[in-house]
Amino acid sequence: MLSPDQIINQMMEKDSFSKWLGIKIEDIQKGSCILSLTVKKEMLNGFDIAHGGTCYSLADSALAFAANSHGKKAVSIETSISHTNKVLCGDKLTAYTKELNKTSKIGLYSIEITNQENLTVAQFKGTVLFSDKNWN
Amino acid sequence: MLSPDQIINQMMEKDSFSKWLGIKIEDIQKGSCILSLTVKKEMLNGFDIAHGGTCYSLADSALAFAANSHGKKAVSIETSISHTNKVLCGDKLTAYTKELNKTSKIGLYSIEITNQENLTVAQFKGTVLFSDKNWN
Amino acid sequence: MLSPDQIINQMMEKDSFSKWLGIKIEDIQKGSCILSLTVKKEMLNGFDIAHGGTCYSLADSALAFAANSHGKKAVSIETSISHTNKVLCGDKLTAYTKELNKTSKIGLYSIEITNQENLTVAQFKGTVLFSDKNWN
Amino acid sequence: MLSPDQIINQMMEKDSFSKWLGIKIEDIQKGSCILSLTVKKEMLNGFDIAHGGTCYSLADSALAFAANSHGKKAVSIETSISHTNKVLCGDKLTAYTKELNKTSKIGLYSIEITNQENLTVAQFKGTVLFSDKNWN
Repeated sequence: MLSPDQIINQMMEKDSFSKWLGIKIEDIQKGSCILSLTVKKEMLNGFDIAHGGTCYSLADSALAFAANSHGKKAVSIETSISHTNKVLCGDKLTAYTKELNKTSKIGLYSIEITNQENLTVAQFKGTVLFSDKNWN
Repeated sequence: MLSPDQIINQMMEKDSFSKWLGIKIEDIQKGSCILSLTVKKEMLNGFDIAHGGTCYSLADSALAFAANSHGKKAVSIETSISHTNKVLCGDKLTAYTKELNKTSKIGLYSIEITNQENLTVAQFKGTVLFSDKNWN
Repeated sequence: MLSPDQIINQMMEKDSFSKWLGIKIEDIQKGSCILSLTVKKEMLNGFDIAHGGTCYSLADSALAFAANSHGKKAVSIETSISHTNKVLCGDKLTAYTKELNKTSKIGLYSIEITNQENLTVAQFKGTVLFSDKNWN
Repeated sequence: MLSPDQIINQMMEKDSFSKWLGIKIEDIQKGSCILSLTVKKEMLNGFDIAHGGTCYSLADSALAFAANSHGKKAVSIETSISHTNKVLCGDKLTAYTKELNKTSKIGLYSIEITNQENLTVAQFKGTVLFSDKNWN
């Protein structure tokens, strides 16, 4: 059986979108992870702030990594996000996952995203479905 | 006062992320829009399917365009998305917005994303807050 | 195997809370149902409008009935609701379910609740997990 | 201006549904509250567990009390709940609110519901809209 690190590194290596976003893995544990990202010009929307898809994508990668780290392949089935503060170009965002519930079939995670001043910029909640397939 | 077309074109022109995603405006009406996007390699995740952030970003742009088309500047306050079918490289996605509720302060929208075979790949729900500021 | 009607009648017969609410079954089909309820004084909150739990409970019963009507026991795993118009004492509410997605493992439903004037008062979205257990 | 206690007592006094549910106020602070409820037979569904509407209603009351305690009248605009463990007849539930974000216009709250064994049975997230009207 693969370790959480081995699984996430394998996922990250093939994850073109997370790479384009510049996502960095800060920490990996069984059932949790910490990811970071620095906001680039290409991620801004028409209001000159980061497009909502930036924080969502960071959180969605964190959800996938945290859930799959248990060793079974997992897919997201329902996610929600509230954008609570503006994100500007150059901001360094960090996503912290918390496993709220886990059964053999489903997992529920909350993810908080903060900026370099430790201000919360987004609150995310995600539910995943675990399959029977092992990572190997 | 600007028309829905003028507002959305102004938003789109400065929206670097929507441009990077290759989002195209198919239709604009007061309170609704249709957007499309063709999935590129850079948008795939480690499972070789589109990262969840792809559909979210398309829907989030559609939410912003539909809400702002009324003429007041609007910001997203809560959004949720369910990914219901796999999205592959090369798929052409289309997002259709529906305004479920609108007051002077808030708006509620559902957005359905389908692929080129008219299969629904994501269901999105978003709430926006309208400000007093006019587009001009 | 039991019919949708047989399953829902069996569920309703033992559902004390739906009975206390006065929920009536208007229609049952495989994968969908229509339920109604008349708002009583006991369901009001401190603003003299129906407590949010009234519409949620009606929608949650509709979700359970629609999902279980397929013949497998199903449980709710994530639900959301937006209250879009005030509900007053005496209002007759009707909940209409729509199955947005169904696999062997999960189901996604949207439910719209309208009042006697056909005004939408709430929009609900729910995800269920199907078990392997048959209704019998 | 009224104190948080005065506002919540005034809300609770007229809240027929919270009274029917047997909701008790355990603690009130500016922006937060703790509520409890003991599950009665009338709150069970056809699976002999508490109807999802029970936890939702408890959380929705907690959301309303926490938000209104600031002194401005607030209404719920979007809420979601995940039911993570079964709730049985006789269980004593406690709801703890946490204010995740607050501006002059909107507030975001997470609410955790635990049972008498300190097991989490539901995770709730709610967004409210603050009006300009003061409690008095």
